[in-house]
Amino acid sequence: MTYCVAMNLASGMLFASDSRTNAGVDHVSTFRKMQFFQQPDERLLVLLSAGNLATTQSVVSLLRQRASAGRDEQNILNVPSMYDAACLVGDTLREIAERDGPALSQSKIEVGCSFLLGGQIRGEAPRLFNIYPQGNFIEATQDTPYFQIGEAKYGKPIIDRVVNYHTPVEDAAKCALISFDSTMKSNLSVGLPIDMLVYDKDDFGPGIHQRITEQDPYFQQLHTGWGQALREAFAALPPMRWKE
Amino acid sequence: MTYCVAMNLASGMLFASDSRTNAGVDHVSTFRKMQFFQQPDERLLVLLSAGNLATTQSVVSLLRQRASAGRDEQNILNVPSMYDAACLVGDTLREIAERDGPALSQSKIEVGCSFLLGGQIRGEAPRLFNIYPQGNFIEATQDTPYFQIGEAKYGKPIIDRVVNYHTPVEDAAKCALISFDSTMKSNLSVGLPIDMLVYDKDDFGPGIHQRITEQDPYFQQLHTGWGQALREAFAALPPMRWKE
Repeated sequence: MTYCVAMNLASGMLFASDSRTNAGVDHVSTFRKMQFFQQPDERLLVLLSAGNLATTQSVVSLLRQRASAGRDEQNILNVPSMYDAACLVGDTLREIAERDGPALSQSKIEVGCSFLLGGQIRGEAPRLFNIYPQGNFIEATQDTPYFQIGEAKYGKPIIDRVVNYHTPVEDAAKCALISFDSTMKSNLSVGLPIDMLVYDKDDFGPGIHQRITEQDPYFQQLHTGWGQALREAFAALPPMRWKE
Repeated sequence: MTYCVAMNLASGMLFASDSRTNAGVDHVSTFRKMQFFQQPDERLLVLLSAGNLATTQSVVSLLRQRASAGRDEQNILNVPSMYDAACLVGDTLREIAERDGPALSQSKIEVGCSFLLGGQIRGEAPRLFNIYPQGNFIEATQDTPYFQIGEAKYGKPIIDRVVNYHTPVEDAAKCALISFDSTMKSNLSVGLPIDMLVYDKDDFGPGIHQRITEQDPYFQQLHTGWGQALREAFAALPPMRWKE
């Protein structure tokens, strides 16, 4: 499976994705699920993907191929808005689903996948979209500034407790990593390394990309510190007493 | 939806279930999802249910009806072992699925449900089973002493972190309530009150049943204390710094 989270906050955008794919427990691999589409000083788009790897890779390949082929038709590097970019990703997803769906459904294999698409195109504020397997999508707002795809439930409570639109992006990154740590503790199909990207509003650069491995001292510190803090917090609360 | 958890620990058995059912957001009701089958001094069986309410109620009604009808054929109050009781629940579930399934699938409604069945029959140790929608089941062991059904993922990380076979049942109850609190924070379809039952090995009594409402002072204490402890633990860990 997969776990990805993206946040569009007042202090910046944050993207994080794990990199484990599995087709059965004996076919576990590492694939990056974070893709960048950049025009220096003009746009940065970040695409996170979950679901059928063949489908998500095909979507990304077609988006890249069409962007490099020429600039006549609309492509991911020339669409005028993030909204149009989300439409383009949705349309490309529908195209692949139509092409590969019938053969896959004969073998009862799920063709579906989901995307988080975020970033900024000059002339607009940063925007974040959650693109469904059907190709339609919703946009994050100040009330709901984050989206998750994939194995989202294990790591949702901690985000719901500490992140809002005004959370500093450094704290949001900390929360995202704790959310990944909780997910990986309960679900083997989500695994390190984690790709993380932070983007400052109106920067239009490549953002700061970091790949967090098992050896990352900060991740180790969070992993150990959070586990210990939880056990201490748990021990500090009184046990239940029965009313007999 | 629903959230239920049951644990078979060295120190006793613990059962907990929420009580919210919903058929769409405008049809939210309160139904107890914890049922007891007891023969004083001989057996206590506790059945937790998740899934289609019509199916789970039918299974329970048939189990009760057949137990009170007479003692000739095998019923939930006379089967000689917990294993046989799990078979009986699975068979009854298959019977309802066969009866109601075709009509429901015409309307694309899911007939399926899951059960946790635990308890003790004299002559055996306490046992706990997780009964799948297909009617087959698995049994908890010392390595994996707990099961969840329904909206299980939000509340799984905290159980994975603090509960094992040797956890005192008072701490397991505390953990279960925190697990419910996290689930209810992230998922509206799980709601108070929580039914909780604790059973001491070889007691063969009715166990101690408690219904935990919003006004329950211990639950309020956990809710507030845990939320605050998490925020403090989060704040105590350093924010992420980017390697630029």
